[in-house]
Order: sequence, then C-alpha cells, then structure tokens
Amino acid sequence: MADSPNCDLKSLSPLQLFERVTEQGEKVRALKAGKAPKDEIDAAVRMLLSLKLSYKTTTGQDYQAGLPPEDLVLINNGTAKEEDEDLVDPWNVQTSNAKGVDYDKLIVRFGSSKIDTDLINRIERATGQKPHHFLRRGIFFSHRDMDQVLDAYENKKPFYLYTGRGPSSQAMHVGHLIPFLFTKWLQEVFDVPLVIQLTDDEKYLWKDMTIEKAYEYARENAKDIIACGFDVNKTFIFSDLDYLGTSAGFYKNIVKVQKHVTFNQVKGIFGFTDSDCIGKISFPAIQAAPSFSSSFPQIFNGKENIQCLIPCAIDQDPYFRMTRDVAPRIGQPKPALLHSVFFPALQGAQTKMSASDPNSSIFLTDTPKQIKTKINKHAFSGGRDTIEEHRKYGGNCDVDVSFMYLTFFLEDDDRLEQLKQAYTSGELLTGELKKVLIETMQPLVAAHQERRKQVTDEIVKQFMTPRKLAFEF
Amino acid sequence: MADSPNCDLKSLSPLQLFERVTEQGEKVRALKAGKAPKDEIDAAVRMLLSLKLSYKTTTGQDYQAGLPPEDLVLINNGTAKEEDEDLVDPWNVQTSNAKGVDYDKLIVRFGSSKIDTDLINRIERATGQKPHHFLRRGIFFSHRDMDQVLDAYENKKPFYLYTGRGPSSQAMHVGHLIPFLFTKWLQEVFDVPLVIQLTDDEKYLWKDMTIEKAYEYARENAKDIIACGFDVNKTFIFSDLDYLGTSAGFYKNIVKVQKHVTFNQVKGIFGFTDSDCIGKISFPAIQAAPSFSSSFPQIFNGKENIQCLIPCAIDQDPYFRMTRDVAPRIGQPKPALLHSVFFPALQGAQTKMSASDPNSSIFLTDTPKQIKTKINKHAFSGGRDTIEEHRKYGGNCDVDVSFMYLTFFLEDDDRLEQLKQAYTSGELLTGELKKVLIETMQPLVAAHQERRKQVTDEIVKQFMTPRKLAFEF
Repeated sequence: MADSPNCDLKSLSPLQLFERVTEQGEKVRALKAGKAPKDEIDAAVRMLLSLKLSYKTTTGQDYQAGLPPEDLVLINNGTAKEEDEDLVDPWNVQTSNAKGVDYDKLIVRFGSSKIDTDLINRIERATGQKPHHFLRRGIFFSHRDMDQVLDAYENKKPFYLYTGRGPSSQAMHVGHLIPFLFTKWLQEVFDVPLVIQLTDDEKYLWKDMTIEKAYEYARENAKDIIACGFDVNKTFIFSDLDYLGTSAGFYKNIVKVQKHVTFNQVKGIFGFTDSDCIGKISFPAIQAAPSFSSSFPQIFNGKENIQCLIPCAIDQDPYFRMTRDVAPRIGQPKPALLHSVFFPALQGAQTKMSASDPNSSIFLTDTPKQIKTKINKHAFSGGRDTIEEHRKYGGNCDVDVSFMYLTFFLEDDDRLEQLKQAYTSGELLTGELKKVLIETMQPLVAAHQERRKQVTDEIVKQFMTPRKLAFEF
Repeated sequence: MADSPNCDLKSLSPLQLFERVTEQGEKVRALKAGKAPKDEIDAAVRMLLSLKLSYKTTTGQDYQAGLPPEDLVLINNGTAKEEDEDLVDPWNVQTSNAKGVDYDKLIVRFGSSKIDTDLINRIERATGQKPHHFLRRGIFFSHRDMDQVLDAYENKKPFYLYTGRGPSSQAMHVGHLIPFLFTKWLQEVFDVPLVIQLTDDEKYLWKDMTIEKAYEYARENAKDIIACGFDVNKTFIFSDLDYLGTSAGFYKNIVKVQKHVTFNQVKGIFGFTDSDCIGKISFPAIQAAPSFSSSFPQIFNGKENIQCLIPCAIDQDPYFRMTRDVAPRIGQPKPALLHSVFFPALQGAQTKMSASDPNSSIFLTDTPKQIKTKINKHAFSGGRDTIEEHRKYGGNCDVDVSFMYLTFFLEDDDRLEQLKQAYTSGELLTGELKKVLIETMQPLVAAHQERRKQVTDEIVKQFMTPRKLAFEF
C-alpha cells in the first residue's frame, strides 16, 4: 500500500500526471536495463501501473507514450470522450483509442485467455519450430483451449484447422492475409489438414449483392488465398453456396446447431433485431458447423469428433463462443481458438479496415506506385509536426501505422527493434520510416501477384473439390 | 329486406330459434326436392341463413342440425364458450364446432378463393376427366390462382406439383393419404411431374427426436406414399436432410427466401417467439423453396420459372402465403394452391388428428379387427341415444364421424347419398352406418398394405434419387 501514489496525485493536472507517468516509465526501463533486483523492479512497475491508472481516471484515456493529453484530444476528433467500451463484433470494430482496441480488456470481456510466453514456448517445443512472428509480437494474442490442442497433439491425437473469409468484394487487402499467413504456418509446423470457409451466403444476406456475385467473389478470393501457398493435398476451400448443396454432413450439423440456439441467444450475442431477415438470424449456425469434423465426411473419411482449431481475428469470436456453448449439447468437441488483433487502416488503428475504401489499406492488386503513394499520403504518422520537434521528442510507434504495418510484415526482429529505437528517439524521421514500409510491401505484394497469376481455374477447382486429404484418421 | 326475420326473433329462446332453423331447413329441402322455382328456393335459403345468424348471435354457436342448444353445451365440455375464431396454423387446428373448422370463414381470413362449380367444371373440361370426388364433395374446397394454372395449361405451358409431409412417426393414418391420393389424381389427369418433400429437418427441430430417427421416419413414410401408386418416372420424393446436401439449387432458393423474410414476419405468420430456436425461425424458407423449379435443376433440366401447384391441407397455407409474398421479389412465379379440409379424428371434427394417438384414427398398419374395434368404439356418432329417438329424429351426418369418413373414402356418389338420406331420416342406425364404414376401410387398408409390401428399398431409392423425370421442358 505504501506504493500507492493516488493520494498525492489527485490534485495534479492531466499534463503533470502525464509527465509523472513518463518519468516513472523511464525509471522502470533504467532499472531493467541495469538489471536491478527483481523486487525493486516490481515495485517500480506497480508504481507505474498506479500512475497510469490515475492518469486514466483523470483524463478518461489510456496513457500513451509520447502523446500528452492535448494531442490525445486532437486524435479523438477534438472531443474529450467519456471512456466507452470498445465495440467488437463481426460487423463492427469501434474504439476511441488511437492505439486501437484494448485487447487486454477484450480478453477479460470475452473470457478468453492471453497467449503468454509459456504457451508460445510450449508451441515451440511441440513443433520444434521457432514461433511465428505473429505469436512473438502478440499479433495472435488470445486463445481458447490451445493447451488442450497441444495436450492432444503431444499424445499423437490429430486435429484440423478451420478458418475463413467473407467474400465481400473481389479486392482483398494485405490485412486479409493475416489469418491465412498464420494458418499456413500452423498447417506446416503441425502438419494438419485445413478447411477454409468462404461465406458467400453471408455476404449475399448482409449486402446488396446477388448470389451469383457473392459466389464469383468467393472464387476470386480463393485465388488470393491459394496464392498464400497452401498445399492442395492438405487443404479444402469451400463456398457455402456450393458446399452446402454437396454435403449432407454439413447441413446436418447446421440444423443441429440451429436446434440448440434460440433467437434470444443470437440477439444477445450478435445484436440481431426483429427486423432482421431470418437468413441473418440463422446464419451463425453455418459459420459454426465447420467446427465439427462430421461436416466433412469426405475429408475425414467419415471420422467424427476430431478436434478443431480456429485461427481468426477476435471479432469472429462471438460465432465460436456460441459454437462452444452448443458443442457438448450435440455431442461434439468444442473448437479451440487462436485470436488475432485487427489489422489497422492506413488512417489509424481506431477502426477495422474496409475493403470498399481503396485508400484504407494496401490492396493485393496495388502497383508499386500505388503502394508508395498510399503509404506516403495516407499512413497515419506518430511523428512530430516539424523535423525539429521530431528530433527532440521522437515519434510514437504505438500510434504510427507505418510502424504497425512493419510489425505485421517485417519478419526481421532485430531490424524492427532498431527502427523502433530510432523512430522513438527521433533519429528516424516519418518519411524514412515510410520508405522502409514501402520497400517492404512492394516486393511482398508483387510476389503475391506473381503467385496468384499461377493459380488457374483448374487449381481453384482442385482446392474446392470435396475429397479425402492426405491424412489418415 | 322483407325476408329479414331478425326483428321478430329477438325474443325467442335458443331452443325456439333452434326449432325455427330446423323447420326452415326442412322447407328448403322440400322446395329443392319438389323442384320449386329458383327464386322461391333462393328466398327460402336467404331466410334460413338469417335464422342461422340469429341462432348464432343468441347462442354464440353455429346451428348444428340435430343438436339442440343443450347438447351443444355438452359437446363443448360443459361450458358455453364465447365464440372464438378457429385456430389454424401448421401446428394447431382448434375449433369449438362439432362440425369442424368453419372453412368459409377461413377462406375470408386467409384471402384464398372458394373452389366453386365453375372451377370444377373448368378442370373437367381441361382434363377431359370427371372431377375427383374430393373436388365434387368440397374436400378440396379452396385455392389460390388455380385459374392461372389452367390458363397456362390450356396454352400448353407446363406446371409441376409439389406436396409434402412432416415425418413425425413411422405410423401414417388414412387421413395422411388425402393430399397424396388427390395429388396422384392431379398428376394422372394433367400428366405433370411431382415433387414430394419430407420435412425430416422440421420434425427434428420441433420434436424430441434425433436426426437419424427423423430420417428413418422419412424413408418409412416414403414407402406409404409410394404405395399410393405414384409413377416413379414422374415423381421425385426427397428428405430435406438428404436433398439439401445434394442440390446447390435448393439451398440457393432457401437463402434467397431467407433474405426476404424478417423475424417480424415469421412471428406474425407462425407465432414464433424470441425463445424459439433459430432453426424453427428459418425453417419456413425450407418449405417455401420447393415451390420454385430452380430448386430441382436435375428434374427440370435446369429450366427455371416453371409454375408450381401445391395441393395441401389448409393448415399449410401460412407457409405458402409467405412464399407467394416473397416470390416476385426474388424473380420467381407465385405457386398456386389447392387446399383441403382437415381429416377429422375418430372422436370428432373439433381437432386435427394426432399421429401419436393410435385411437384417433385408422392407421395404415391396422388389422381388419383393429379397424372394426376402433370404428365401433371411438367413431363419434351423430345418432340418437336410443333406437326409438333415432327412428323418430334421425341421425346428424354433419357431426357423424363415420359419415364424414365415408365422404372421404366411399367413391360411389349414389350410395353415399342413399346412406345420408337413410341416416338422417332415422331409417339407418348408427351401428349400420359404422358397418358400412368398416366394410369400406378394411379392404382399402388391406390393399394399401399389400402395395406397401411391394415397395422395396431399391424402389424407395429410385424415387429418392435426384434425376431427370420423364418430361421435356
């Protein structure tokens, strides 16, 4: 209790509090750098957390290094908002925080578990592979029952991966690749089968779009997904509109889920209203059903109850909270989950990106010139207004979108750390950081385009044909 | 207006009114029998209707020949109920009237059209066949757009038939055959293809039943349906659980309907609540979709927009009111309908029968002895308490279940009329009428059982395999 700074702090202004937090942060870093005794560091960290709490109570905002309270107000559209909970569901991601959604709070609210160092180390031991940088950097940050998947895996019990995409347009952006890049890595290191659902029916139901268009987008998106390098012998990609009409097992699981979920429940989970069409209301069962291996009799040779692991962005969790609730009641194992953070829009991390706004991200169809222009013109900067100020105070990587994008796409940990230090210290200017991002993204997108060109209709057909995959069950 | 008896009648007791209605009814019959001038008969009928209205206003009940007001009270469980509207939806049929549901009122409420003599004559002209006794006797009494089907048929435009059954148990009763017997006749006289939906998914959703059981019932019921004598070259029977997983066309139509119907609408039409499972809420689309020929690409050679005609019991109309509302919005023709009355339970016409109560009807598995015992023991009689009273006042065919069953199953019009006269006059006793019914039903059920025995699994498979039927489109 002696550490509590709250009593003395109540009279401080937001700016004074800001400076106290900054000082304390520096003290913690210095103690850690100097390898001070553990209890001394712990006490300093507790004090830091208390100061941050006071700052938040006073300003209604999280402390953000390098962003004094006035700047924060500007970022938040000029209004000092009351602190609202972030809104996160499959159709909305809203936060007033420039750093994006508060993921630690989301873990508490959703009742999932943090992916901590222990779990990451365990994955490394189980697979014998260095953990993917999405794990090392907290991009996949939350899970449900991943430890059980590892228990089973270590006992030679098989599992399969399930992920998906709602094909809302022909154009996918680099953020859409995150779950697929990570899933591909999981598939490789664990050597497990994978099913990928394209919810063209969902897009037809939610958007002003014909069935034919939704199905066309599904096939186009499949090409971009295949271009990530999935192994055709281990991967089944399906459109709901297509596959539902070719698999009795899939529909049976859908109707089982539909029997065990009430309108009251989907109203609570997804916010549906009485004015929503019955297609939307029953759709959650269609996203739930691929969590059960009996939805794929061809793939699993009719074997049921194979454990499923779902890597997805955290906004999809409501579907799978519902699925996990239903699973034991229909005699199926609960799917495990790995949740990613959201990929930020170029304009800032406050919202999830929109595939319908071409400037909101780098698209997989962008030319090198478009990539350069977009980053230079639209990527929200955590740098200072003038070179002089930037040199003096340094940039803020926590809100700088170029730096955020690099955490997703620059695989070299040392280089990333160097950039962070240089930018934070003011040594690296915004334009220079953007240049690094441009030079990272241009070859990455060009290589994707090259691979996508190789994906013929015949290859798409192979991936989308229900068949036995190269595994024994 | 001179005919109106209302002014003088207000002071009469229910029993006095009853006698006036009875007298007037006799007068009408005498005028008709004596081939009196049309306007004289019309005037007497108008007076009769006015008297019945007065009787109803006073007693809160429809006039029922042979049942004075005191008896009525007994039939209605000893309480003189307020007149409620009949409750008719796919899961409930309730009426307080011993004659059964008031179908004329139902036509007004549902907004359908009466099958009148003109329409029956037109069907006869179009097909060159004597109309089925279900049409002649008002068992199929209501329709939607049957005239348009006939317009198209006369212009050589094809249509197809769609009917169905919810396989809630293995045991079907003779009442379940009504739509199938009539559909078979329609198929023969119009020479058109037929699809029969077995809603095993519906039964799974509504009942405490496994998917496997529902599917088993569907296959067992298919055998009874096939035993009605359908032509395998012109008939496709399908279980939803089965067919939904084998036809992309079917699911696409389902999702189209689901996009265009809100929860508010199904709440209004079917009385669903927030506590209902999402499977029930979205199910109406699954019963709607077979109304569109594109749900059966194999059968119609991919041809869309073929007119559909649905013969069914009137309680299924809510599904198709919804379907007809959606059809133009998804670019499909509205299905036409032919509605039948309900088949009465042995215990009386107040309720629809229940397949779960073996004594509520004659089952297709009953032995001759069971048929005899059930009719003698359970068939509600419109006869009098003593032979003396019966000889004096006669029986009441309007409420006598044995007579009702004979209108369904005794094809000989003259014989039926003779029985009616003899029973109404008191010449024929209840036991004798029951004997006629027993002798009608025993060979009918035995013959069905004989035909059902011939229906092998192989034949069921043929009927249930999606394939091109023997028609050119």
